[in-house]
Amino acid sequence: MNYSMIRFILGKMLLIEGILMLLPALVSLLYQERSGIWFVTVAVLLLVTSLVLGRKPKDMVIYAKEGFIVVALAWIFWSAFGALPFVLSESIPHFVDAFFETVFGFTTTGSTILTDIEALPKGVNFWRCLTHWVGGMGVLVFVMAVVPLSGKGSMFLMRAEMPGPTCDKLVPKARSTAKILYCMYLALSAVEVVLLLFGGMDLYNAVIHTFSTAGTGGFSSMNASVAAFDSAYIDGVITVFMLLFGVNFNLYFLLLLRNFKFVFKNEELRAYLGIVAGAVALITINILHIYGSPLRALRYASFQVSSVITTTGFVTANYELWPEFSKGILLLLMIIGACAGSTGGGMKVSRILILAKTIGKEIRQILHPKSVNVVKLDGKRVSDESTHGVYVYVICYLVILAGSILLVTVDNFDFTTNFTAVLTTLNNVGPGLAKVGPIENFSQFSYFSKIILSMDMLVGRLEILPMLMLFAPQVWRKKF
Amino acid sequence: MNYSMIRFILGKMLLIEGILMLLPALVSLLYQERSGIWFVTVAVLLLVTSLVLGRKPKDMVIYAKEGFIVVALAWIFWSAFGALPFVLSESIPHFVDAFFETVFGFTTTGSTILTDIEALPKGVNFWRCLTHWVGGMGVLVFVMAVVPLSGKGSMFLMRAEMPGPTCDKLVPKARSTAKILYCMYLALSAVEVVLLLFGGMDLYNAVIHTFSTAGTGGFSSMNASVAAFDSAYIDGVITVFMLLFGVNFNLYFLLLLRNFKFVFKNEELRAYLGIVAGAVALITINILHIYGSPLRALRYASFQVSSVITTTGFVTANYELWPEFSKGILLLLMIIGACAGSTGGGMKVSRILILAKTIGKEIRQILHPKSVNVVKLDGKRVSDESTHGVYVYVICYLVILAGSILLVTVDNFDFTTNFTAVLTTLNNVGPGLAKVGPIENFSQFSYFSKIILSMDMLVGRLEILPMLMLFAPQVWRKKF
Repeated sequence: MNYSMIRFILGKMLLIEGILMLLPALVSLLYQERSGIWFVTVAVLLLVTSLVLGRKPKDMVIYAKEGFIVVALAWIFWSAFGALPFVLSESIPHFVDAFFETVFGFTTTGSTILTDIEALPKGVNFWRCLTHWVGGMGVLVFVMAVVPLSGKGSMFLMRAEMPGPTCDKLVPKARSTAKILYCMYLALSAVEVVLLLFGGMDLYNAVIHTFSTAGTGGFSSMNASVAAFDSAYIDGVITVFMLLFGVNFNLYFLLLLRNFKFVFKNEELRAYLGIVAGAVALITINILHIYGSPLRALRYASFQVSSVITTTGFVTANYELWPEFSKGILLLLMIIGACAGSTGGGMKVSRILILAKTIGKEIRQILHPKSVNVVKLDGKRVSDESTHGVYVYVICYLVILAGSILLVTVDNFDFTTNFTAVLTTLNNVGPGLAKVGPIENFSQFSYFSKIILSMDMLVGRLEILPMLMLFAPQVWRKKF
Repeated sequence: MNYSMIRFILGKMLLIEGILMLLPALVSLLYQERSGIWFVTVAVLLLVTSLVLGRKPKDMVIYAKEGFIVVALAWIFWSAFGALPFVLSESIPHFVDAFFETVFGFTTTGSTILTDIEALPKGVNFWRCLTHWVGGMGVLVFVMAVVPLSGKGSMFLMRAEMPGPTCDKLVPKARSTAKILYCMYLALSAVEVVLLLFGGMDLYNAVIHTFSTAGTGGFSSMNASVAAFDSAYIDGVITVFMLLFGVNFNLYFLLLLRNFKFVFKNEELRAYLGIVAGAVALITINILHIYGSPLRALRYASFQVSSVITTTGFVTANYELWPEFSKGILLLLMIIGACAGSTGGGMKVSRILILAKTIGKEIRQILHPKSVNVVKLDGKRVSDESTHGVYVYVICYLVILAGSILLVTVDNFDFTTNFTAVLTTLNNVGPGLAKVGPIENFSQFSYFSKIILSMDMLVGRLEILPMLMLFAPQVWRKKF
């Protein structure tokens, strides 16, 4: 294990967080808020820590194991330091609460423990929502622009952080891939800001809500979330952009290269849109009697479906009052999640596709024992290694889901609350049902449960293995 | 597909059910109940159907696919014919209800839709509980004593019906294996009857409760289940026998052969007993404040843990009133289930062991990419085929779990009810939480949901693939 390299990359990571913290400091300055000083303080603290950690090691080679470890540590440290401004500005006085809230941010889960968001200083809420935008695309991608790593090394980092069962490079160099991804991310975000401004939002709110949509997070500047604007136009724009940010970014790159045929034939995209269309149709019919007008039902259904499948977690309707069938569909969508290589969470549509095809293959195999059956995605054979990876992912997912539910039962809340609280954090969605429903929040949990749920969010965002590695005793043995 | 052979085996199966129905007819005669006549009627009906189906085909060769199909069909037909005495005797007037109750019986789930069990004629309840005893060991094992099949063919039948990831033959001939299994089953059952008689139960109740324990079912002759006897001795005997019937029967055979070393080193057995001990300890501590005395808490905890992990479903305490932590453990035990090759349901401890070991292997693989890692159980390497089979099982399990929950939401019950109703039927346990809790029953569901839950029970008992095959369109195409 190359510990010096882990230390070195961590140092660079913290430096970047320090630089990012100057943005909310600027916003505080603009709005003449005193809390801005705390962002500068933490930025300096991060700079110093980074200088302490930051000597360049001789051996710059890293492998998959270092990639996993550094990613897991980076996310924990970013969240811990990111929580400090909340504590220092007394917006969230207790550190565990502030850490929990920051993890909600970076993992783009987007739930909150705050009961009055509108009372937050604008700079503080800007930082809170910025964590969504940064966490959505991944924080390590930033590092690649700063740290010169051998091509293989960057790939290991990227693979540990990218959502989905496989990780494609768009261009031969991982570093260039990272830059292209962030450029497209920035461009799409800019378009959304402009469209929201057209809808009558002020710049601050447009930026805040774009951060949340782009990262598929769910934080808002309003206590009532997006419902506060009560505008069909704004609902529409956000619905479309949530769906757009739930698509694999590689496809946008292919669009830029005018490779339309490949994009429209993409099986994951088709399945994703098919699931969305089906869910919207079923829920619209199911909630028609509540809203009377089919258009209103369609508006709320499509917003909520997009919000949940992309794991954004914005709310325009109290779906806790919808029939159990609609709630059941929403829970299923939470688990499915968005496309691989998007900013969304959940299991990812491509994993579900691979699993579904495996079942089909298995039945064919029994019917025709002598025939050769393979699982194909987009016309290409899915390697046994990939299928195996998906299986292991699902198994770990279930074990962690079950274990976490058991641990949070110590708060003695009802089963629906416990189950959906873990489900919504593990999939980085945001709201759940019952005590963690759309109009409730997570403040009622004990500190113990808050730490468990924070870990679940990190496990979910990093797709399990990196966090699991941290707990493997072999990793921390001296002789290795 | 050898359709004639499927027809032939089905015919033999129905004949056996007809013969079995003479037992409750005898009980009715003893207690001078008029409902006995209906058992004779259905027995005759089964005999006639069997004669219609029963011509011996020329080609007696069957493969895995025929094995799966015949097992799935057999269980459905047995349940359908088995439901008739309930309908004809007007104990359960509606056929769907009667079918549901019979599936509760054969799959050894052991929930009920009846609100007053004590009002049933004794013959009818005898038949109800006999289905547990027969369903526990498997109905096809009977067939092997009647139909002369080539060794390979019987193996395919047995594998389709036996619980667990693998199927070992005790002796070279599958037919002899089946006979040995039933003899041991009979012997263990006889010991339990005697021990219950010692506890002051009358013969009828002792037999009824032995049927339920042996099949890990859960039906009782009392509305209050085993709690009606309120005897620490009876609780103790049933606790021990539930655990015994949850052990792989192969181990008993090895004990008879005096191969003690192998039995005590068996990893599944050790894991199973470890889980039981751990769960009992945690729940005892957790419910201590409810019962005051540690001994009482231990008594209720150990009974309920044994009842749930073996998926029997007997109840001596209303665990709905226990803390959420204890309820969480019980839900986990439901999923884990008993040992492979026992009469219990659930995922089976050996599958959980294989999955846990796979995760460990995966982490080692990342840490030492060049080392060769294999998953071992009882010192032997688990083949890739077996591991793969476990994965496919888990995936199908999850898809069916999620799909069924969504379908039963149409009744608009709360999430806890829907989730635990499907979980408890799919794992053949019996009681769940909330509206299907220990002191409630399944009568409130719509006929639609009852059919879905019946299918879940059959899917759970036959471990998914046989039932899944029935729905594969290729199976029913003429050209094959």
